[in-house]
Amino acid sequence: MSKRPRVAFQGEPGAFSQAAVQQLFGDAAAILPCQRFVDVFAALMSKTADAAVIPIENTLHGSVHENYDHLLEYDVRITGETNVRIVHNLIAMPGVRFSDVRTVYSHPVALNQCLDFFEHNPKLEKAPFYDTAGSVKMLAEKKPAGAAAIASAIAASLYGARILRRSIEDDRRNFTRFFLLRRAAERRREAGRSGTWKTSLVFTTRNTPGALFRSISAFALRDLNLTRIESRPLRGKPWEYLFYVDLIGREDDSTVRNALNHLRELADFLRVLGSYPAGSQAAG
Amino acid sequence: MSKRPRVAFQGEPGAFSQAAVQQLFGDAAAILPCQRFVDVFAALMSKTADAAVIPIENTLHGSVHENYDHLLEYDVRITGETNVRIVHNLIAMPGVRFSDVRTVYSHPVALNQCLDFFEHNPKLEKAPFYDTAGSVKMLAEKKPAGAAAIASAIAASLYGARILRRSIEDDRRNFTRFFLLRRAAERRREAGRSGTWKTSLVFTTRNTPGALFRSISAFALRDLNLTRIESRPLRGKPWEYLFYVDLIGREDDSTVRNALNHLRELADFLRVLGSYPAGSQAAG
Repeated sequence: MSKRPRVAFQGEPGAFSQAAVQQLFGDAAAILPCQRFVDVFAALMSKTADAAVIPIENTLHGSVHENYDHLLEYDVRITGETNVRIVHNLIAMPGVRFSDVRTVYSHPVALNQCLDFFEHNPKLEKAPFYDTAGSVKMLAEKKPAGAAAIASAIAASLYGARILRRSIEDDRRNFTRFFLLRRAAERRREAGRSGTWKTSLVFTTRNTPGALFRSISAFALRDLNLTRIESRPLRGKPWEYLFYVDLIGREDDSTVRNALNHLRELADFLRVLGSYPAGSQAAG
Repeated sequence: MSKRPRVAFQGEPGAFSQAAVQQLFGDAAAILPCQRFVDVFAALMSKTADAAVIPIENTLHGSVHENYDHLLEYDVRITGETNVRIVHNLIAMPGVRFSDVRTVYSHPVALNQCLDFFEHNPKLEKAPFYDTAGSVKMLAEKKPAGAAAIASAIAASLYGARILRRSIEDDRRNFTRFFLLRRAAERRREAGRSGTWKTSLVFTTRNTPGALFRSISAFALRDLNLTRIESRPLRGKPWEYLFYVDLIGREDDSTVRNALNHLRELADFLRVLGSYPAGSQAAG
């Protein structure tokens, strides 16, 4: 019997991060839910977990800068990515009908992403809860009368609950991109080179006009395609910036290698976070 | 008696957006709290509000893409910016001492930004609530025993509550940048040209390698300094991107005007969102 990989993520069992784990591993993984993102990284580094899955950007809410910080603090590598569509479902315990529901528990962000549903169902009261999946867990444990929750389908099945209304979110273009992480020391040759690969990197430039322009010339002059660029002010250094860049290609492709060497001449700091097979594109 | 400007923002009275209004207007403004961001834009366009203040990016949580979408949908102009440090305070009604507190209400995002405080005070129970300022309002209205809230100082003073512990957030480098908006039709010559000005724009490029590089050459070739760049996948158009750019300069500076004309040749779509005096820099 082969050992199942143990995969850490932030949130309760049934969180959207667990859906990301499922997209990446199928049913092959054992999950390790953690309270904070920093606990996820710590679990990976201490070998409590074999891999970790973290959200990195959302089509409505932008980048999770905290996780970019952790990617620089911990000696990890990105080895995969996946995009999860955030589908909110109205969930209740078996026997509870839609007409019975009076109170709907969920994380306020999820409640706020279903405002049209609440406008069409004015008898329903929104009740803020700590966590989307946690609100379903609470229903299963306490069985409050007339109660439902808003969470993922995976949370419903995990806690033996039922979906009363599917996909009640206002905006269907709500995707979260997740990175799969491994310890850097255990970098392995991935299964194959076929398909599209991406490389993610972080660099800083000095505060001179055109510094960014020169930096990305390292890619443009070699016809390398960037799929993402974002600047972020560098703490305590006014007008200096950290750049997040994703490009199409592998770190060990000769063109990418040359571009990275060129960028090293131009940037104050450069870290390659990993090369990985591109996931299906979000926000399509 | 001169009429006070009526300024719309999203959230309850006492929300961090109101702190942004105060930084921009002092006590000169009358506030108009709205439930959703879209209500804020609608209030401005219908002239229910004279101005609007919206969050656009946060140092921990990234860009508020929803508001960039609204900036493109509505005929508004950015006429100012300000950065608010997100300071979380433990707040209770007069007479409640720290030793009395058992339950702490707030928005889960705020509760999660004060985890060190809760670790050091294990007798305190976290209670998720809809809104930071709303949790103080609830204390004032219902006066539950042994209850406190986590919110801004402005919320404490607004609801006649007291700050028991100041600045209990884990990370002090938590800043939100806000834009001040006016109706585009009422664009006015601002007070003066002195100091640093910024111009914000949005553009799209075709999916060709180097398209971004050519686009930002319009600025680099004129020694214009970009203070922010972010790509965002364009909905329904795989591998095409929307770019958010902020640069130092005014739209009516001749160099900026030339750069924008150059960029118009290269970009499929370009919209200048506004020119405004630069606020103090966040994340210092």
